Amino acid sequence: MHDFRYKGKYLYCEKVKLEDLAGRFGTPLYVYSYRTLIDHYLKLEKAFRPVKALICYSVKANSNLAILKALIAHGAGLDIVSGGELFRALKAGCPAEKIVYASVGKTDGEIEEAIRRGILFFNVESLPELANINRIAAKLNKITRVAIRINPDVEAKTHKFITTGKITNKFGIDLKNAYKILCMRNNFRHIRICGLHIHIGSQITESSPFVSAIKKVAVFILELKRKGIYLEYLNIGGGLGIVYDRETPQTAQRYASKIMPLLKKTGLKIILEPGRFIVGNAGILLTKVLYIKSTPKKKFVIVDAGMNDLIRPALYGAHHNILPLIKVPGAEKTDVVGPICESGDFLAKERRIPKVKEGMYLAVMSAGAYGFSMSSNYNSRRRAEEVMVKRNKVFVIRTRETYADLVRNEAK
Amino acid sequence: MHDFRYKGKYLYCEKVKLEDLAGRFGTPLYVYSYRTLIDHYLKLEKAFRPVKALICYSVKANSNLAILKALIAHGAGLDIVSGGELFRALKAGCPAEKIVYASVGKTDGEIEEAIRRGILFFNVESLPELANINRIAAKLNKITRVAIRINPDVEAKTHKFITTGKITNKFGIDLKNAYKILCMRNNFRHIRICGLHIHIGSQITESSPFVSAIKKVAVFILELKRKGIYLEYLNIGGGLGIVYDRETPQTAQRYASKIMPLLKKTGLKIILEPGRFIVGNAGILLTKVLYIKSTPKKKFVIVDAGMNDLIRPALYGAHHNILPLIKVPGAEKTDVVGPICESGDFLAKERRIPKVKEGMYLAVMSAGAYGFSMSSNYNSRRRAEEVMVKRNKVFVIRTRETYADLVRNEAK
Repeated sequence: MHDFRYKGKYLYCEKVKLEDLAGRFGTPLYVYSYRTLIDHYLKLEKAFRPVKALICYSVKANSNLAILKALIAHGAGLDIVSGGELFRALKAGCPAEKIVYASVGKTDGEIEEAIRRGILFFNVESLPELANINRIAAKLNKITRVAIRINPDVEAKTHKFITTGKITNKFGIDLKNAYKILCMRNNFRHIRICGLHIHIGSQITESSPFVSAIKKVAVFILELKRKGIYLEYLNIGGGLGIVYDRETPQTAQRYASKIMPLLKKTGLKIILEPGRFIVGNAGILLTKVLYIKSTPKKKFVIVDAGMNDLIRPALYGAHHNILPLIKVPGAEKTDVVGPICESGDFLAKERRIPKVKEGMYLAVMSAGAYGFSMSSNYNSRRRAEEVMVKRNKVFVIRTRETYADLVRNEAK
Repeated sequence: MHDFRYKGKYLYCEKVKLEDLAGRFGTPLYVYSYRTLIDHYLKLEKAFRPVKALICYSVKANSNLAILKALIAHGAGLDIVSGGELFRALKAGCPAEKIVYASVGKTDGEIEEAIRRGILFFNVESLPELANINRIAAKLNKITRVAIRINPDVEAKTHKFITTGKITNKFGIDLKNAYKILCMRNNFRHIRICGLHIHIGSQITESSPFVSAIKKVAVFILELKRKGIYLEYLNIGGGLGIVYDRETPQTAQRYASKIMPLLKKTGLKIILEPGRFIVGNAGILLTKVLYIKSTPKKKFVIVDAGMNDLIRPALYGAHHNILPLIKVPGAEKTDVVGPICESGDFLAKERRIPKVKEGMYLAVMSAGAYGFSMSSNYNSRRRAEEVMVKRNKVFVIRTRETYADLVRNEAK
């Protein structure tokens, strides 16, 4: 599954002892395994090779330039959601024709820049947005490509915050209205509607929601064909779940086997937008135990990583396994909490973990996706350093912020 | 209550039309009223003048240097929770002897720096932390002051994430163990225990939890006196609730009248640590309507501020009023949502707001506290600009980030 394993009593990332990294770079520290990252990308790429799918990595999961560069070097395209992500994608060297752009709230400036750069297409989320893209393309005297994001109204069976394919969500367009838009496509003279897009949510561990959604869209595509509306792309989004705890998510191969027949039937070029699947288990967060605090009711392991570094437990009630970098015997029920002044600042609650002591280091597992990318400076804390391990080599891919960084843009 | 008011059909901050600010600086934009900020500080300062309380503003609520400077100029001290906040406090010109430092997870480096700078005292959260501060003070050959943070085990009647005075929370020390620590105070030769601290939570709108907590501590202080343990300070923390929606929180005067008799009885110097009470209603977040999206089930107002700019609705289910900068007739039930690719990215759900159109600006009210300070670069979005209004003048107190800022610390 991933390259974070004990060898003897020490936890390693590939060939590097994590205890050494924590000592050398300090904590909190994000550590990524190059091999795990690429391995997960290739698993999907291979599974979908029969339809020559373009895998557009979802930048929002982890937008570090080094992560993007590594994936681009292996042939990945990118799925972006903002002007900032377009900037990152281009800076990392992604060819514009491998970039797809989704978001319910694209601004004029962002749309203009993406058209100028010649991205593959926009995933369009509403009729007013379509009209706006057409207006801006007209101003630039260009014709730009779009895919209509369909809201297939399926239940993704995941956290309500990351369900995006229900009709009550802000995302996409229902089939009926999508059809209306396709029929009036000639009104938008600076747009070519070249495809459909779906993305029903995130951290989905079973294939049935995907199958339901793709079936609906596949039927729709055939209907359109019969009516003389021909498309080129089907973008099936991302959302593949990973193992955080005891999940048993579908493999890339199994996912592909379930949906490939449907995809082939459409005859369209296929695009995928995985984020978490590729980077989730390729990263961990190292933290140091500052204090062991015993109270009459509870035992707290207080660590130096907080909700500003990893907000998933507080925001989604997410589970992350916690392992000591050096194996210790025993186990005890504890709350693992950060230094932030809120009770919401925890990494684990009422969790049995090994009997650690002050000064020891812990690894918060599966923190590669939506870890650093959601981190903040709350409590005026500097954001963590990020390093990438490649066999026995270590590369700093983002240095720790300084105090001066915190006030850089403020009036002195 | 605050200086954001309609004059005719336009919403103003003091003497400045907000529509003009949104146009001039772009959105999302945080706008603060200097007068409201200082007014709230002075309300507390006046209410507690009879005991000459030191008001230590809680930096984590909003740590912008301009906010800190304005309060320091009016006599405020600062309540800090990290080395980054110590850096900010000193940079803003706060005298070290007006700084108190709380956090369950102070690192060695942070403790050392605070001792060197000669802060007023640490609020100590556990016995291991006390021992650690003593060890570091010994190394520096100094004697440093601490207050013991008491966990009074009272129900603060607020969101579970911001309740901090229950015995199951990670904060403070129960009375029995606090007494034990006070009895062994001579073992810590580099520490002088000079006071007690309590802080039971945040956004507490009624006085009864405060009264319960302070009563418990006041009784404890008198017991200690009888046993020959004399203290100098009682730090009663913060947590005063404000109006977000229909709350009717206690005023500063009413709060003071309820607890002043208890405080006077202790004979100790009083410290307060308000954050939200001072800055919460002194700031708003301006945002632009990008698209109006009608779906079969819902109407969405899509704006250019997201959960990365203001995470309180997603994280705490918090309510913020939403007002148009130019009054418009009608009202309709809508979801006001941001551009971020999560269903958790909303500012209001199923809320009746005026019938706004694309291109109009909205004010998200009461966003001065835990707004910008919790903001992030999620979705590679640049953090908002911040401006301070003082009568008819406008000061940029933090410029909008650039795309280059996003990757500043990353390997190129």
